[in-house]
Amino acid sequence: MTAIGIDVGGTNVRSAVVAADGTVRRQQRDATPDLGLTPATRVARLASVIGELVARLDTDDATLPVGVGIAGAVDDDGVLVFGPNLGIEGHQVRAPIEEAVGRTVAFVNDASAATWAEHRVGGGAGLDDVVLLTLGTGVGGGAVVGGVLLEGAHGIAGEFGHTIVREGGARCPCGRRGCLEAYAAGARFALDDRPGSDVVVAAGQGDERARAHLDGVARWLGVGIANAVASFDPAVVLIGGGAGQKVFDGIADVLRVTLDELLVGSGHRPAPPIRAATLGDDAGVVGAALLALDRAATTEGTGP
Amino acid sequence: MTAIGIDVGGTNVRSAVVAADGTVRRQQRDATPDLGLTPATRVARLASVIGELVARLDTDDATLPVGVGIAGAVDDDGVLVFGPNLGIEGHQVRAPIEEAVGRTVAFVNDASAATWAEHRVGGGAGLDDVVLLTLGTGVGGGAVVGGVLLEGAHGIAGEFGHTIVREGGARCPCGRRGCLEAYAAGARFALDDRPGSDVVVAAGQGDERARAHLDGVARWLGVGIANAVASFDPAVVLIGGGAGQKVFDGIADVLRVTLDELLVGSGHRPAPPIRAATLGDDAGVVGAALLALDRAATTEGTGP
Repeated sequence: MTAIGIDVGGTNVRSAVVAADGTVRRQQRDATPDLGLTPATRVARLASVIGELVARLDTDDATLPVGVGIAGAVDDDGVLVFGPNLGIEGHQVRAPIEEAVGRTVAFVNDASAATWAEHRVGGGAGLDDVVLLTLGTGVGGGAVVGGVLLEGAHGIAGEFGHTIVREGGARCPCGRRGCLEAYAAGARFALDDRPGSDVVVAAGQGDERARAHLDGVARWLGVGIANAVASFDPAVVLIGGGAGQKVFDGIADVLRVTLDELLVGSGHRPAPPIRAATLGDDAGVVGAALLALDRAATTEGTGP
Repeated sequence: MTAIGIDVGGTNVRSAVVAADGTVRRQQRDATPDLGLTPATRVARLASVIGELVARLDTDDATLPVGVGIAGAVDDDGVLVFGPNLGIEGHQVRAPIEEAVGRTVAFVNDASAATWAEHRVGGGAGLDDVVLLTLGTGVGGGAVVGGVLLEGAHGIAGEFGHTIVREGGARCPCGRRGCLEAYAAGARFALDDRPGSDVVVAAGQGDERARAHLDGVARWLGVGIANAVASFDPAVVLIGGGAGQKVFDGIADVLRVTLDELLVGSGHRPAPPIRAATLGDDAGVVGAALLALDRAATTEGTGP
């Protein structure tokens, strides 16, 4: 069994042929249509890019299921809602994309797709209760609950970055105060002009200022993890996203110490392990493809 | 279809015969065994109380499924873990309770049972994505995700009261700082020597100090609701528990205003409605019974 996964991010659109075991067989990539275009042009261009990326995969079988993970939520009518990074909110996206690829498409939020991939073939494989936090420009995430993907009533679940960990605290890019993202987004791990990955290296070499900085940011992320654990009681917590991959080894100890300190029911249950997500940039295409396979296997054929 | 639901709380043990539509046909109640007893005696006494409560229901059918909702979590081996209010943590409870009632028993956390009941036949009926927050001595809760009950890997999910909303803030009874429960537990709605329900009445009669007090506590609860909405994206948020029932009408407006202010994706989706849970004290027995019915209908028969 094989499917095509598409990952529509704010910068790039990726496509891949993905086997049921998560193996990525081919990959293509193109730039996400420029934000300078009008929304209508942008939608048409996005559909065209996706159509080309599917064609370039050069599959023999024109009926392979297609899943699209997208930085937003596509509602039951095919309209993109809550996609602030794509500039096409409120526009019909399903119809033009399905026309471009010549078949029905399963849509899913990109963070949810990544969570599903990690649950099925990544760091959470074999576990039915998984929480993923992704560190990038912001803090995102998702969850699998009893083997079921958390999608929510409007496709906007797992927004851990905008849970409030210090009411009245630091201003978040979203306009609210005290969101986890205001304290622990990927960029927060940077120090002076050094990116987070360099700060991790410096801390490892004994730079105390770098160490203190990392520990402080990691402590905040640990609070966010503890809150997700109190809410979901997962068997594992995964840290993913571009920044997450780069800094994980440098912050894992503080994350674990913080969770041990803040764990609900501490002493009566083990703290779930905190691990790096394993699929990296492939998580989005893999999850979208595996969901498309699952949905093709159900009676309905397509899902919400 | 009918089942027996048992609700084991810190004060009372209740039993009832419950129809598949949630109708409660008979009810019995006894005191939870005294905390002064040794744990082993207490377990034996609890099993005996449950056996008697089932016998007193006087059902003709000795094979009716039995579900037990309990203030804690019963693991796969039948051991009660994380049941701080019952004084029998770490003890085998399944074997003696099953012996006392003469059949297998489905165990579930009491807050999860209440959530399931509200999802099936209460304030969340017809909705697959439900969050319940209960206000009592503490703040508890649960969730239904895509029609599946959130139970977590260790039966300790939905602990919204111990999510941190103000890192470093007020001391919580659990020992941590800044938990939602430290700001919005049932007792927080009281003022001077007036219980929360009286404060609601006073506020309704124009008592400005009572109004300001209620609004302040409700604002904190609203932050907790916003965090649960960011995490779960439910179709409805229900407020239950003894204190929740009593104060809901007096705080609903502030809860809604706070959620509108803090809603993730505000403007791109509707805020979920916030409603009072509808099943009151029956939620526990109803949910335990309905879960027992569901599990009896599956191949496994019993579940964790």
